[in-house]
Amino acid sequence: MVIVMAPEATQDDVEAIVELVATAGGEAFASRGVSRTIIGLIGDVDQFTALNLRGMRGVADVVRVSAPYKLVSRGNHPERSTVTVRGVPIGPDTVTLIAGPCAVETPQQTLEAAQMAKAAGATLLRGGAYKPRTSPYAFQGLGEAGLRILADVREETGLPIVTEVVDAHDVALVASYADMLQVGTRNAQNFALLQAVGAAGRPVMLKRGMTATIEEWLMAAEYIAQRGNLDIVLCERGIRTYETATRNTLDISAVPVVQRLSHLPVIVDPSHSGGRRDLVLPLTRAAIAIGADGLIIDVHPNPEQALCDGPQALVDGDLAELATVMRDFPALVNRTLT
Amino acid sequence: MVIVMAPEATQDDVEAIVELVATAGGEAFASRGVSRTIIGLIGDVDQFTALNLRGMRGVADVVRVSAPYKLVSRGNHPERSTVTVRGVPIGPDTVTLIAGPCAVETPQQTLEAAQMAKAAGATLLRGGAYKPRTSPYAFQGLGEAGLRILADVREETGLPIVTEVVDAHDVALVASYADMLQVGTRNAQNFALLQAVGAAGRPVMLKRGMTATIEEWLMAAEYIAQRGNLDIVLCERGIRTYETATRNTLDISAVPVVQRLSHLPVIVDPSHSGGRRDLVLPLTRAAIAIGADGLIIDVHPNPEQALCDGPQALVDGDLAELATVMRDFPALVNRTLT
Amino acid sequence: MVIVMAPEATQDDVEAIVELVATAGGEAFASRGVSRTIIGLIGDVDQFTALNLRGMRGVADVVRVSAPYKLVSRGNHPERSTVTVRGVPIGPDTVTLIAGPCAVETPQQTLEAAQMAKAAGATLLRGGAYKPRTSPYAFQGLGEAGLRILADVREETGLPIVTEVVDAHDVALVASYADMLQVGTRNAQNFALLQAVGAAGRPVMLKRGMTATIEEWLMAAEYIAQRGNLDIVLCERGIRTYETATRNTLDISAVPVVQRLSHLPVIVDPSHSGGRRDLVLPLTRAAIAIGADGLIIDVHPNPEQALCDGPQALVDGDLAELATVMRDFPALVNRTLT
Amino acid sequence: MVIVMAPEATQDDVEAIVELVATAGGEAFASRGVSRTIIGLIGDVDQFTALNLRGMRGVADVVRVSAPYKLVSRGNHPERSTVTVRGVPIGPDTVTLIAGPCAVETPQQTLEAAQMAKAAGATLLRGGAYKPRTSPYAFQGLGEAGLRILADVREETGLPIVTEVVDAHDVALVASYADMLQVGTRNAQNFALLQAVGAAGRPVMLKRGMTATIEEWLMAAEYIAQRGNLDIVLCERGIRTYETATRNTLDISAVPVVQRLSHLPVIVDPSHSGGRRDLVLPLTRAAIAIGADGLIIDVHPNPEQALCDGPQALVDGDLAELATVMRDFPALVNRTLT
Repeated sequence: MVIVMAPEATQDDVEAIVELVATAGGEAFASRGVSRTIIGLIGDVDQFTALNLRGMRGVADVVRVSAPYKLVSRGNHPERSTVTVRGVPIGPDTVTLIAGPCAVETPQQTLEAAQMAKAAGATLLRGGAYKPRTSPYAFQGLGEAGLRILADVREETGLPIVTEVVDAHDVALVASYADMLQVGTRNAQNFALLQAVGAAGRPVMLKRGMTATIEEWLMAAEYIAQRGNLDIVLCERGIRTYETATRNTLDISAVPVVQRLSHLPVIVDPSHSGGRRDLVLPLTRAAIAIGADGLIIDVHPNPEQALCDGPQALVDGDLAELATVMRDFPALVNRTLT
Repeated sequence: MVIVMAPEATQDDVEAIVELVATAGGEAFASRGVSRTIIGLIGDVDQFTALNLRGMRGVADVVRVSAPYKLVSRGNHPERSTVTVRGVPIGPDTVTLIAGPCAVETPQQTLEAAQMAKAAGATLLRGGAYKPRTSPYAFQGLGEAGLRILADVREETGLPIVTEVVDAHDVALVASYADMLQVGTRNAQNFALLQAVGAAGRPVMLKRGMTATIEEWLMAAEYIAQRGNLDIVLCERGIRTYETATRNTLDISAVPVVQRLSHLPVIVDPSHSGGRRDLVLPLTRAAIAIGADGLIIDVHPNPEQALCDGPQALVDGDLAELATVMRDFPALVNRTLT
Repeated sequence: MVIVMAPEATQDDVEAIVELVATAGGEAFASRGVSRTIIGLIGDVDQFTALNLRGMRGVADVVRVSAPYKLVSRGNHPERSTVTVRGVPIGPDTVTLIAGPCAVETPQQTLEAAQMAKAAGATLLRGGAYKPRTSPYAFQGLGEAGLRILADVREETGLPIVTEVVDAHDVALVASYADMLQVGTRNAQNFALLQAVGAAGRPVMLKRGMTATIEEWLMAAEYIAQRGNLDIVLCERGIRTYETATRNTLDISAVPVVQRLSHLPVIVDPSHSGGRRDLVLPLTRAAIAIGADGLIIDVHPNPEQALCDGPQALVDGDLAELATVMRDFPALVNRTLT
Repeated sequence: MVIVMAPEATQDDVEAIVELVATAGGEAFASRGVSRTIIGLIGDVDQFTALNLRGMRGVADVVRVSAPYKLVSRGNHPERSTVTVRGVPIGPDTVTLIAGPCAVETPQQTLEAAQMAKAAGATLLRGGAYKPRTSPYAFQGLGEAGLRILADVREETGLPIVTEVVDAHDVALVASYADMLQVGTRNAQNFALLQAVGAAGRPVMLKRGMTATIEEWLMAAEYIAQRGNLDIVLCERGIRTYETATRNTLDISAVPVVQRLSHLPVIVDPSHSGGRRDLVLPLTRAAIAIGADGLIIDVHPNPEQALCDGPQALVDGDLAELATVMRDFPALVNRTLT
């Protein structure tokens, strides 16, 4: 940690900080420059954070120079991790395709979507029974009835289930059906929910908040990890920018950036980032090429009747092309399709 | 609602839409232009939303031309509302000052902060017992012990309490102490929480999500209103932009924009938007001048020891100036200080 | 300047930096922490910049701790400056109103707008003869014919002229008519133009780039100042954010932030930031209240016929209210209307 | 074009618009809804734009439903174009690598960088002789001396030259040396420069403004095209967002989005978007996979001594990997390396 003093800070201001740091068991070294003094701190950064150094007289800025997350950081765990979801790996040697309908609507629709997904190379089934919607007047999901449909379709197709949970108090119920719990973009800082999924004994897919910095996203993962669960897969799904041609802007650079900062697997959601069917395949190719550990894609047998996000779901005609991409691209980055 | 057809759309595509709209009890009028056709829809917009028109063949865009919120819209309630918190009004004729510590730490600190607040003109006391924090290693609040401290300080000072709730399942407990429930920026799309406070029988202060559009913010209010609670005060607290000189960018224009769209009162948080003590008073002056219905400001007897957001809390020396602003500025916009 | 070393940096990496800094006449002090080493640099920062320290082995980050601008910084000139435009001051003791049509269209329209402006309290006339427009098919201004109209209206009304210049090679011509040169938001990093107006012998109004950070804005001013011209007035005119309810988001906090960093006057453009007539007066009140040194406002005798930005121009009916604001608000912040 | 009337608009307001549109030779059809009226306009949109409809009484919004650009739009030219730079194609069947130093510093450095570039598969040489820099104290390029170095290196290596021009009045000089003119991100709305390169008789590479929407970017291309030059290559180079882990956020989705809207080739700059050497190769793979028509990459023989953007330049050790990517990836998307 580095403290930058204001130009008008006095010698007394500097000494007050050196003493305060010493009381917390740390050491502070002041370097006096022409126009200002810089103080380098050595010791336990979390202790220093509690000192509220930014509030001390004469302090212009406090610069943290180590990452605030630990359990999920690659510094503490140099090997990249593989997370296994009922036998299906997500990690550095493979590309895993998760696909299915945005929302579970009927047994028929879910089964057909699962079969489409499987034919395209998917080894995990996505499908939402609880949908967080911007409008209280929009379809909010089937709830437990939807979970039962997912379980039936798993039975029929053999695909393990990834499904979203939106309230800390539904976690136990959802975990009793799901193979992997999804935390959505709107709950990226719902800390009660993060802690609950951290204690649920299931792998978790954590979507990036649509306006979360990479650091905030990793701090959200740290909340889960701190409860003892390191089976976390991060999912980049687009961020909010000024550009309106796409629903969100896929931050493709975040994939290698996060893989360097954290040992956790990182997958990409090309459906929700663009919000347009015609972008799903191009973004899928880009995601595999950059080194994403997997993809999560919306498919729907009849998107024009979908109750949620129909315009971005792949349809039957697109799936042959998706299957081709899933077959040909992983080898280019020395991976295999799971 | 207006449907813009793609240039390549056929006559059959247009007719399919006209028929579909008719099945939902609406009327559709097609206007054929040189390069494309536009279809205007008349009838119940929510019915149309369920039709998934965007998924129909030939559709390039669907433009909603009326607001998606109802209960909170000014269209449905032309007079601007006043929300009363244990006798203290927040509304169009007054300027209400809510002040207090960011987090409740000790009885002494809370009482001193409340006395500072009152001396500056505050008629409501803010203070957090449950703190949503980006880091799991940061101070998370005292919980119910903090609520008891707030209740004691209310007893002593007469100031009603505004305090944050972060989990739907804490709402009843927090409501048993609080006079007004606060929903924070990180929970702006925590729909379970919004519904729970909507049913709690207490006025609610709803902070804008730090990256919520004005429409999303009003939709969040609609979630509360839909559960029968229209005692909602909106709070602009800065949005996330590329500028890093301030913690967030106060969107001061949002105050008149929202007052025109919604009948709900709108207040401003000059402490969290800038994140800097030296900006609190200038932003307070601007907020009153533009017509905000109130302010919520952090004060702390010893900010250098604050466990949360010390750098932005006003200190004793600033309060005389705050009191002067609160005394002199409301008259300029034909309001009185509550 | 502080250099943060990567965790894997070696002792040799650190020594290489210490030596390199010494060759540039500086001193470097290394502080070794538990997980990484920090190096504080003392000496001439601009020399250090040329060393390309970020490219050295083992360097994770280079943190600049002093401002990169000099001539415009308040550190080098603690008193806030007043810029005088043909006798009209813009500075810390006054509020100056600049008003007029967005674009000069006809002698009649310009004269009427100038008279409206004057009646509302304006002491400087704005009006564009060269208009940078996003579309090549939009009205681009009357050019020199527009400048002549402005000069005639100055003659008639006594109001000095502020007008935009968009090309370095037009500067001499525009300066032969104008009392103050305006550099617009799209040219905020047109360095040839900045240098040209820096040498033109006229005060300059420099609009903030619509996506410029405060630091980039001050660096643009530094380009002008470096050519010997310190008669610069900065103009905050809204920044680009994700919010679409307003054309841009007025960054009102930038006014006090910049006044603390720079000695130059700062004014606000409430017309272009919101892009809506109904926001001009509220934003004007907020700007004066926060301490802006002036305002620049679009007025037009017939906005529905304006060739440029009609929807944001104040009309006759608004001007009485603007006059009242200009009369009553400056005193509140201990200023007088010029 | 669609006009959305305000709820309070009267029948007279609607009729006034219908009449006004008729005077411009168009037709307007009003559709009356429950809460508001919508008017669809048929005819010449540019004529309608001049009517300033937004300023008419009762108008809430004017929605443009066709693109404002023409010459560069795919609607007017359905086949995707190939631009040829001294015999080197950039277009839909190929992947073209442009590489070289960010800034030309010395003959030796430029020649070595060009040889590195060529070995990695480059067929065009980039190199800046005029550098727009945020700080007036930073290296601004060698000017014409730099152009001469580039010409010598072209002689030696056979690589045609792509180089930036920053001032309309340098265009003739730069065009006398360059094979392709580059317009940089800071000049994306420098309309005088756009018009000058449009008349220069050389292909142009137009970088996206760092905060330009896709529509603004295409409008900038329209400025060039309008002067008779359709040999334009668009370059996505990252946009400004709130994320600070990378210098800019590469908007990879923009590649297929723009290719659908415009017939012009689109290339990607993976060096400036991330600003980090470790991201260049991953982003290059992603760009080819998504279907970019080419890449522009910084290479430098000694990045630690580079006068400009050293931290992002590829070094010798990276080039073998770049060569492999350029050899293996184009075939995956049915393209050949030029």
